[in-house]
Amino acid sequence: MSLHKVVIFGVGLIGGSFALALKKARAVEQIVGVGRSLATLERAKELGIIDVVSTSVAQALQDADVVLIAAPVAQTGAILASIAPHLGADTLVTDAGSTKSDVVAAARAALGKKIGQFIPGHPIAGRESNGPEAALADLYVGKKVVLTPMAENDAADIERVALAWRLCGAQLHQLAAEEHDSVFAAVSHLPHLLAYALVDEIASKPHAARLFDYAASGFRDFTRIAGSSPEMWRDIALANQSALVLELDAYITHITALRGALAAGDGAAMEAVFSRAQKARLDWQRTIERAEQSSQEGGD
Amino acid sequence: MSLHKVVIFGVGLIGGSFALALKKARAVEQIVGVGRSLATLERAKELGIIDVVSTSVAQALQDADVVLIAAPVAQTGAILASIAPHLGADTLVTDAGSTKSDVVAAARAALGKKIGQFIPGHPIAGRESNGPEAALADLYVGKKVVLTPMAENDAADIERVALAWRLCGAQLHQLAAEEHDSVFAAVSHLPHLLAYALVDEIASKPHAARLFDYAASGFRDFTRIAGSSPEMWRDIALANQSALVLELDAYITHITALRGALAAGDGAAMEAVFSRAQKARLDWQRTIERAEQSSQEGGD
Repeated sequence: MSLHKVVIFGVGLIGGSFALALKKARAVEQIVGVGRSLATLERAKELGIIDVVSTSVAQALQDADVVLIAAPVAQTGAILASIAPHLGADTLVTDAGSTKSDVVAAARAALGKKIGQFIPGHPIAGRESNGPEAALADLYVGKKVVLTPMAENDAADIERVALAWRLCGAQLHQLAAEEHDSVFAAVSHLPHLLAYALVDEIASKPHAARLFDYAASGFRDFTRIAGSSPEMWRDIALANQSALVLELDAYITHITALRGALAAGDGAAMEAVFSRAQKARLDWQRTIERAEQSSQEGGD
Repeated sequence: MSLHKVVIFGVGLIGGSFALALKKARAVEQIVGVGRSLATLERAKELGIIDVVSTSVAQALQDADVVLIAAPVAQTGAILASIAPHLGADTLVTDAGSTKSDVVAAARAALGKKIGQFIPGHPIAGRESNGPEAALADLYVGKKVVLTPMAENDAADIERVALAWRLCGAQLHQLAAEEHDSVFAAVSHLPHLLAYALVDEIASKPHAARLFDYAASGFRDFTRIAGSSPEMWRDIALANQSALVLELDAYITHITALRGALAAGDGAAMEAVFSRAQKARLDWQRTIERAEQSSQEGGD
């Protein structure tokens, strides 16, 4: 596949890495960047991430093959609305948001009859740094990209978006939007909330400085995700409110039971929780390592 | 300082690394290993960690300068009781347990009038692997060792134990035992319980396999400590029960409030928690990195 023109809204880590990966694969003729900050767009052009800086959505969208929305999720609705009037019949739109039910709803509202041209997506990749400087041509190699197609999407259109991501080195998966949001509430959004809460709890204590002084590598890894952008995670939590509330409730029930076992001195009950968790964690780690090894050995 | 004879109960990662570090510093003439598994002791001798395998506590303790108890914490009381009748006036005993109030109580019960010869300690270092094979001469370099001396300890004796750890490259700190337990309940024991609970919660769901399938790097780091030994953490949790229950209660209150903010769609309240946490986490990270850098530059 060769793409004539790809348009990227938001040329930071996620959008910029998509651009660099397509260029590295020699799969695209022209990449147009659109965004709220002209300085960021100019910087992305200097870095060779995009070829053209556009301040006109109409012009940018003309004859575009694929549009990727990789701006902060709170902007997705407004971007879709700005795209809608200029969206030609042969252009597909996808996004990179961490939640999907809300994006689907926003897309339906913004695109109306053109909804079939929007294929929602979520690349499972990231780094701690942001902005065009953080973009990497290899960010998506071996990483999962989850598409959450809707009934209105044509199979051929889904495949075109999937292929663009495959050219970036990604492994493609599909989930229903609600299922996607439930899965990521459990394995990503909940851990972020828990890590933020732990660090805030410790920071709020009168002897916080002494506590941080003795925090070591276990604390470092557990709380690494608490260094993430507060605005981004506020938006993700709100966008995935219902699934995340369910996960939080289940978790609070679980640790309240563990607290009861501890207070009762019930070592067997605690050990049962710890043992099941250890086994699951070690099994998961082995699966990940096997997958990484087989992908290094040239598998898919 | 040169030590004539050091006795180590438990020649795994912690005890074995203490032995290797003292040998590397040429600070000891003879290291005697004692333990429940003869095979482990023989292996430690083959690896050059200890010089002598002893099956007699009386013989091992004769003319010993320093005794380190580095066996699983649940054995500490029994080991102290076995040491007591053979403990000469010039021998100091220390330990490596993750909790200190319980060890102090066990030591008072076991050692009676000899209690002044016991200086409780906690090296803040570890690896994911265990056993003599995991021992490293450099494990303690730049790491903290916390001593929690009692009123009965002589300053000179505390200093002798501190010096042995300094010869291993460690940075020495002192806390009261209760303070130590409160600090580590917050920054170490609580995170372990939270990580175990999250993994067990996910593993218990009917669609656990799918959830683990989409878990990525944030999950990996957050749950790394859930791969730790269930027996060890059961014992630590029970040993530090009262402090840990307090921390769990504070944490449950905190995430219940966060859950309320999420359910109410109160983005500002959530962002306030996330922002305070992010700032504290980034500040802590910078402090750690500065400390590591200055220690690499030859500072203490």
